[in-house]
Amino acid sequence: MKKITIKNPLDMHLHLRDEQMLKVVAPLSSQNFSGAIIMPNLVPPVTSIKELKNYKNRIKKAIGDDNFKPYMTLFFKDSYDYKFLKKAKKHITAIKLYPAGITTNSEGGVDNLDVESLKMTLDAMSELKIPLLVHGESDGFVMDRESEFAVVYETLAVSFPKLKIVMEHITTKTSADLLDKFPNLYATITLHHLYLILDDVAGGMLKPHLFCKPIAKRYEDRDALLNLALNAHPKVMFGSDSAPHPVDKKESCGCAAGVFTAPIALQALAQLFEQNKKLKNLQKFVSDNAIHIYEIKPRKKEITLVKKDYKVPSSYGDVVPMFAGESLSWSLEE
Amino acid sequence: MKKITIKNPLDMHLHLRDEQMLKVVAPLSSQNFSGAIIMPNLVPPVTSIKELKNYKNRIKKAIGDDNFKPYMTLFFKDSYDYKFLKKAKKHITAIKLYPAGITTNSEGGVDNLDVESLKMTLDAMSELKIPLLVHGESDGFVMDRESEFAVVYETLAVSFPKLKIVMEHITTKTSADLLDKFPNLYATITLHHLYLILDDVAGGMLKPHLFCKPIAKRYEDRDALLNLALNAHPKVMFGSDSAPHPVDKKESCGCAAGVFTAPIALQALAQLFEQNKKLKNLQKFVSDNAIHIYEIKPRKKEITLVKKDYKVPSSYGDVVPMFAGESLSWSLEE
Repeated sequence: MKKITIKNPLDMHLHLRDEQMLKVVAPLSSQNFSGAIIMPNLVPPVTSIKELKNYKNRIKKAIGDDNFKPYMTLFFKDSYDYKFLKKAKKHITAIKLYPAGITTNSEGGVDNLDVESLKMTLDAMSELKIPLLVHGESDGFVMDRESEFAVVYETLAVSFPKLKIVMEHITTKTSADLLDKFPNLYATITLHHLYLILDDVAGGMLKPHLFCKPIAKRYEDRDALLNLALNAHPKVMFGSDSAPHPVDKKESCGCAAGVFTAPIALQALAQLFEQNKKLKNLQKFVSDNAIHIYEIKPRKKEITLVKKDYKVPSSYGDVVPMFAGESLSWSLEE
Repeated sequence: MKKITIKNPLDMHLHLRDEQMLKVVAPLSSQNFSGAIIMPNLVPPVTSIKELKNYKNRIKKAIGDDNFKPYMTLFFKDSYDYKFLKKAKKHITAIKLYPAGITTNSEGGVDNLDVESLKMTLDAMSELKIPLLVHGESDGFVMDRESEFAVVYETLAVSFPKLKIVMEHITTKTSADLLDKFPNLYATITLHHLYLILDDVAGGMLKPHLFCKPIAKRYEDRDALLNLALNAHPKVMFGSDSAPHPVDKKESCGCAAGVFTAPIALQALAQLFEQNKKLKNLQKFVSDNAIHIYEIKPRKKEITLVKKDYKVPSSYGDVVPMFAGESLSWSLEE
């Protein structure tokens, strides 16, 4: 049977939430991944070292063993100064910037993206070598939000040349094209944006479980993402953006944005890479590139996938995953 | 108190469904409208005179009085010949063409939109002066489907110059621009496409009750529709495309397309037209233009609207309307 063993798989963009949801989803990530970059957009967001340490402890408790490393992030504030960041540095791997109000729990995000407003914090981050992770969307028309944000990425990349800037969960050809233009821009790509275009979400029936932010785009955008991921472009990392919501927040009169993929991501990636005859690049996409970009040493973990049908559960607790009830052609080795 | 009386309001695109749903929604249309063009996409679709007469009787029974005229339509088949259509003519007002599989219950629609395939039927309809109503979408990317269909409209308009062709529920500037180029092209516009863009459906939370086909488009598209409707362009008619689905088909893992507006359409139109200082044009948009285009004599009915807050019900039976639970600034006079 066809097999592949992935060393130290990493999820460079993960929502673990808190409380009961954390207890449901954290073990599902720790089973399959060596570690993950943990998003800080709790309610309220994680903006102090104390909150961050407490959250990290709750994550560790939810996982129950020491076999998974949560790489912690702070929620960006333009009031963070050098002194604070120097202290924070040993507890965090990166800082995540959200434009205010642009996605789930981002109300306390940044109102003003001018270089002047961000300069104190980003200069300190540059000096301390703390990567900046960015949710890159404008407040414009939903299909244009990411491409309208390109000018912000360009400005930040030029203004802070020593700062590593990760364009999170990119969904457009516009963002993909920035990678080779600016040496300090990097990107994560989700599983679902490698599979979906807007037609899958809203072209037939409306599919709330495939609704996410940024929203899935056009064929040519997905093609650009596939080209990066399947070829394991060295500036690109896998970040699931796995974002669980209870089913009553998805199948309702107002459905929250987020696709839950953590427990099925490696299987679905193996399927996608094999179908495209790029299985040999999966190791780089889901681990090696991230190790080089972040300069981290992950926990040793090997995950073996086998080419054997896997039926995705219809739910995990009250969270419905991507591909719920469908079959994937790759399974985790038992 | 500010008032307006609309004479013989007409809904030139209405889904009344069948059975229990028909009983719920038909009286809600007959209360406010003098008549409506009834869509034939039942399961199975209405393709014979017998089925059409039976459906018309069920509609009359559901309404209970003779105060509302259902203008009946057949589901287009390219096998309808002159002889059949001549017999059908006294029972129908128009024939509705669906490209196969493009929207709710359109599986038996037209596979081949070539002029040659349609010629026999469209020549007969031209001669018998039976208008052709078209759901104009390609099977392409969801945001492009209507604009990709423009070439079909152009070809039909030129190939069948004596045929009145109504572009149903137009949603794009592309379609709007066709009206002044081809003398035999007309259009209906819905209430919801005058209010919504894609951002309202999927820009914040995902809103299944605002999900419809064609999907709501961009600002510039809505502006083009508003320009036509508010100025009561003589080739444009109101057609609600009010399309009820039970709540469990909307708030679920796969949400059906359709917005239910029949009982609140006149109030919401009065609000929109007044806000834009075009209240004087509402009569033309919701009645006079249709009377001229279809050359019909509607039942006499006067509906008076008053400028007084109206709280939209959260549901009618198990159907959730547009603006559910919200306030509109115009009410029906009691």
